[in-house]
Amino acid sequence: MDLWFTEKQLPTVGLSCRVVRTLEVRQTAYQHLAVLETEPWGRMLVLDGMIQLTVADEFVYHEMLAHVPLVAHGQARRVLVVGGGDGGTVREVLRHPEVEEVVLAEIDPEVVEVCQRHFPETAACLDDPRVRLAIGDGIAHVAEHPDTYDVILVDSTEPVGKAVGLFGESFYASCRQALRPGGLMVAQTESPFYNPQLIARCHVAMRQAFGNARLYLAPVPTYPSGLWSFMAASLGPDPSVPAGEAGGTPSGLRYYSREVHRAAFVLPPFVHALLQGEREPAVTGEGLG
Amino acid sequence: MDLWFTEKQLPTVGLSCRVVRTLEVRQTAYQHLAVLETEPWGRMLVLDGMIQLTVADEFVYHEMLAHVPLVAHGQARRVLVVGGGDGGTVREVLRHPEVEEVVLAEIDPEVVEVCQRHFPETAACLDDPRVRLAIGDGIAHVAEHPDTYDVILVDSTEPVGKAVGLFGESFYASCRQALRPGGLMVAQTESPFYNPQLIARCHVAMRQAFGNARLYLAPVPTYPSGLWSFMAASLGPDPSVPAGEAGGTPSGLRYYSREVHRAAFVLPPFVHALLQGEREPAVTGEGLG
Repeated sequence: MDLWFTEKQLPTVGLSCRVVRTLEVRQTAYQHLAVLETEPWGRMLVLDGMIQLTVADEFVYHEMLAHVPLVAHGQARRVLVVGGGDGGTVREVLRHPEVEEVVLAEIDPEVVEVCQRHFPETAACLDDPRVRLAIGDGIAHVAEHPDTYDVILVDSTEPVGKAVGLFGESFYASCRQALRPGGLMVAQTESPFYNPQLIARCHVAMRQAFGNARLYLAPVPTYPSGLWSFMAASLGPDPSVPAGEAGGTPSGLRYYSREVHRAAFVLPPFVHALLQGEREPAVTGEGLG
Repeated sequence: MDLWFTEKQLPTVGLSCRVVRTLEVRQTAYQHLAVLETEPWGRMLVLDGMIQLTVADEFVYHEMLAHVPLVAHGQARRVLVVGGGDGGTVREVLRHPEVEEVVLAEIDPEVVEVCQRHFPETAACLDDPRVRLAIGDGIAHVAEHPDTYDVILVDSTEPVGKAVGLFGESFYASCRQALRPGGLMVAQTESPFYNPQLIARCHVAMRQAFGNARLYLAPVPTYPSGLWSFMAASLGPDPSVPAGEAGGTPSGLRYYSREVHRAAFVLPPFVHALLQGEREPAVTGEGLG
């Protein structure tokens, strides 16, 4: 059987890949969930039709979401991951010996359960004694934990359904309250090519909540357009500057390095322009947001 | 009619987009050529089924191919573009007032003719008095012009058919002979995610020809994987360092800046590894090369 999966990245753009077999296809209480064994990229997690991770390229996204704020902070002890039930972000956080506790606030327990069976590369770390699962609404969790975390990582799905609230000023303000002095937050904020309006809005919202917001970029082939953005805000350290000594930085990584960290914050002029709301509409039919 | 175009980026991966209408579809003496009006990306040039440019994102590729070596050189007077019959690279070269002549060595006159009708954004510049069209084999042109150019830009199609010879040591050695003292060459070298073996081979070949070779990266959404590579070799200036003063650098660009120039040479560890032949095969079924 010649089986293909297609994600409609925009109404007029599709990314397709060959599927060896379907390992899970189900409706959870929150979303449609599928695990596919694909030929180009290995196993793939799909939520509501959108690729969340593939074994081939998840390292870029997870390393850049976790290590940029953790290395900029330099001594984070308590870390919160909002979303990210696949465990990939937690795995990267655990590479930092200074981290004493990682809380994973994932709303959908079936994502965690399915990933523990099908994605040991990312989810095996959830058994680590430093990890605490907090199954439930991440927005409520943040609101209920003032002055608790050194770093908050928003590893969300696209801004549809339950995840919409993770892309707004009230959530960012709540994150600010949940951070301890000198803390940082980072949120994934979609593609500069396909979601410029969303990024511009998040930038305004995060600046209103924190007084600062910095965007950085990394390539993720299976995400729409292949270029992904992350937005960082801080109560102290400059997110673009690796703290401490090189020796204290996790080694053996495949995308992150201290040099990549700094370079990821160097934005091309068209991205500077979209942050200032000066976008010319290059791609017709902006996607989500 | 619901018309879609799909490029098989790998045997197991397709990128598709909605087509408003087909403007040209023909077989030339060298390749299959199509011009499509697409909904997401505007007009698109397709050669042998592979996207060469779209109006929406060609700026990244053309700016990074041209300005990195031209700014690193700082005083290039004669520039050769091999391939690139769409004119996009020539357009960027012409932004440098120090350039006195740009020779475009394009093998397929129909590419030039079609682009002059359908892509004024890139091809209108070919009427500039500083541009000289040299329709014919770029490999022969380089071999016949020793000690002639300050910068050579290899704006080739994928390494299939006539373009295979543009990806090997004998062509690079010929380019070295065609450069004047202090000259640089840059070639497009495909995707680090999908073509690691090709990049590793080109790196060895360019180092053998020049004694040096430096890779740099930029995101191009409509190219396979969304991340593209360029390889630079030099008879003098460090390709990663912008020469001269910021005031002498072309302004009004959308991707290139002097800061982006430096940052593009900061390679993630997995790319360093593939340049050393230490690639772990992440994506199954490497494409071309």
